[in-house]
Amino acid sequence: MNPVQPAHAGIDTAAVTALLTRGRTLPQPRLRAAVARLAPPMDTVAAYHFGWIDAEGRPADGDGGKAVRPALALLSAEAAGAAPEAGIPGAVAVELVHNFSLLHDDLMDGDEQRRHRDTVWKVHGPAQAILVGDALFALAGEVLLELGTAEAARAARRLSSASRALIDGQAQDISYEHRERVSVAECLEMEGNKTGALLACAASIGAVLGGADDAAADALSAYGHHLGLAFQAVDDLLGIWGNPDATGKRTWSDLRQRKKSLPVVAALSGRGPAARHLGELLRKDATKSQAEFDDFDEAEFAARAALVEEAGGRDWTAAEARRQHAAALRAVSDVDMPSAVRERFVALADFVVDRRR
Amino acid sequence: MNPVQPAHAGIDTAAVTALLTRGRTLPQPRLRAAVARLAPPMDTVAAYHFGWIDAEGRPADGDGGKAVRPALALLSAEAAGAAPEAGIPGAVAVELVHNFSLLHDDLMDGDEQRRHRDTVWKVHGPAQAILVGDALFALAGEVLLELGTAEAARAARRLSSASRALIDGQAQDISYEHRERVSVAECLEMEGNKTGALLACAASIGAVLGGADDAAADALSAYGHHLGLAFQAVDDLLGIWGNPDATGKRTWSDLRQRKKSLPVVAALSGRGPAARHLGELLRKDATKSQAEFDDFDEAEFAARAALVEEAGGRDWTAAEARRQHAAALRAVSDVDMPSAVRERFVALADFVVDRRR
Repeated sequence: MNPVQPAHAGIDTAAVTALLTRGRTLPQPRLRAAVARLAPPMDTVAAYHFGWIDAEGRPADGDGGKAVRPALALLSAEAAGAAPEAGIPGAVAVELVHNFSLLHDDLMDGDEQRRHRDTVWKVHGPAQAILVGDALFALAGEVLLELGTAEAARAARRLSSASRALIDGQAQDISYEHRERVSVAECLEMEGNKTGALLACAASIGAVLGGADDAAADALSAYGHHLGLAFQAVDDLLGIWGNPDATGKRTWSDLRQRKKSLPVVAALSGRGPAARHLGELLRKDATKSQAEFDDFDEAEFAARAALVEEAGGRDWTAAEARRQHAAALRAVSDVDMPSAVRERFVALADFVVDRRR
Repeated sequence: MNPVQPAHAGIDTAAVTALLTRGRTLPQPRLRAAVARLAPPMDTVAAYHFGWIDAEGRPADGDGGKAVRPALALLSAEAAGAAPEAGIPGAVAVELVHNFSLLHDDLMDGDEQRRHRDTVWKVHGPAQAILVGDALFALAGEVLLELGTAEAARAARRLSSASRALIDGQAQDISYEHRERVSVAECLEMEGNKTGALLACAASIGAVLGGADDAAADALSAYGHHLGLAFQAVDDLLGIWGNPDATGKRTWSDLRQRKKSLPVVAALSGRGPAARHLGELLRKDATKSQAEFDDFDEAEFAARAALVEEAGGRDWTAAEARRQHAAALRAVSDVDMPSAVRERFVALADFVVDRRR
């Protein structure tokens, strides 16, 4: 399925691929050098997490993720008229914070798989997941601040605010799990913190390092924030209606986890019979054990997905993704930058809402 | 017992008490305001950890610790000729990092009690201990960097290096637990990271914020590092021979936990019959379950303590505390500062090695 078609036609796939490849490769030596500073065995555990080695310590070429954040950090330096290399410490710092949060979130959420491999807490134990997460977080600040420039200090300040928002978002996510009702506004706030804040930082940190003023950095930050919300809306759509062959997740993945994602929350906020019926079903579901729930057959989840759709949750979320996509493009149009750079910001936003995985 | 008598007589107890009280009270409003920024329920969980409320949320006046670190941060500002208030953001940031590490270490180590109360993971669960630790760590960077000055950026850089050393130290501590032999050098390196690094940062961060140059900050940092190692040596002595009425811990506390503390490691490095006998005993101990070990009677632990002493572990550790105390005083004598301020650095070092709890 194609959840959200961008308003204008023709996504520049080649440009996006080049951008993401650059995001993955250009900061890599600096990232590896930073991780190599950790005291053993944290260096090895981190290398496993990043996919550089397997659980037995053999070199591996693991999936390091989409690399949207480092790609943005490098592009952001170019938006300020600097070379992409000026954004490297920012790309490394943002990747370190992102991976700190993955290590801790996987442990808190009890997730056993990440990027098609066992998670760190599963392989190396909870203590290593905590410690290595802490170490990557500390390293992020160090990588920026050791540059010793005023720009690096501004970048570090933005990164520490973004990190705190990220942690707030995870706290909200956990606390919402225990609540019966979550409003659309609360869900958007949580997603803004959990996904928007670090993408906002990624989209502006390279520019800050490249000498941009606060106004330009704030506009790029707004682009990243809206991109994050668009990304999350699409993620929430894929979490229910995504093609398992493309996403690598099971069918109805988020429904199986009883996740209060945007389509569900939006559907429940409706007033029609589908919203009421869905609400009753989910209230009953909440009383079931995970084992009982896991025994549900496909048709049960398909019925819930159909109710979410009937109550308007799917359409609302797709429209929200388009709104955030449009807001991201508006934000980036406010910044004076070479048109080739702006086109890549646009292509990346198109890619984020058009992706199937 | 009085483990280590400082070389010169007469500790200025009143000066130390005043210093620690100021360290506890002066940064308090700023610390509380910072913690209040956290998203619920993290603000409440943090308030419980700091002893401001009890487990039911009622106001409490808990033991917030000795406050050596914030006291040092304020004194350090005075060493640079600034008002103690100039050190407040540094005191707050260092306290936040210290408490981040306590929250995570208690969880990793499975410690159920801290400051005579149940630890956060015990009361609020592991996820909150991880999250709130992360949040305090992020907050520390924010509190400094939002000052927006070059001094604050230098302070933040020192804090992030110290934090990483702290995490390295915890990683070493955990990995040493699983090893049969640990050398004295490894033990000192671990203690330097786990205790020395943050005290070094505390002793210099106020000066950095107060405008000191790197040479002065480095000398103050050396004072803090040696103070930390002296503190830890005394802690390790109290962990075996401390008076339970004073320490609030059980007799032979570190021996009961089979901790490879400095006196034990130093004793094992000896070549005499006591060292050999101790080594054999501890190798046998290592094969026992914690339950079997808990059943040991007092005499068993007393025998081990006597062997540690006979093999020279007690004397060596007391001498090490004196060496570190002397090195701390030398470091502080290198810095040009008002003599009243220097006297308080000396009084604090005397207090640290003379304490009974």
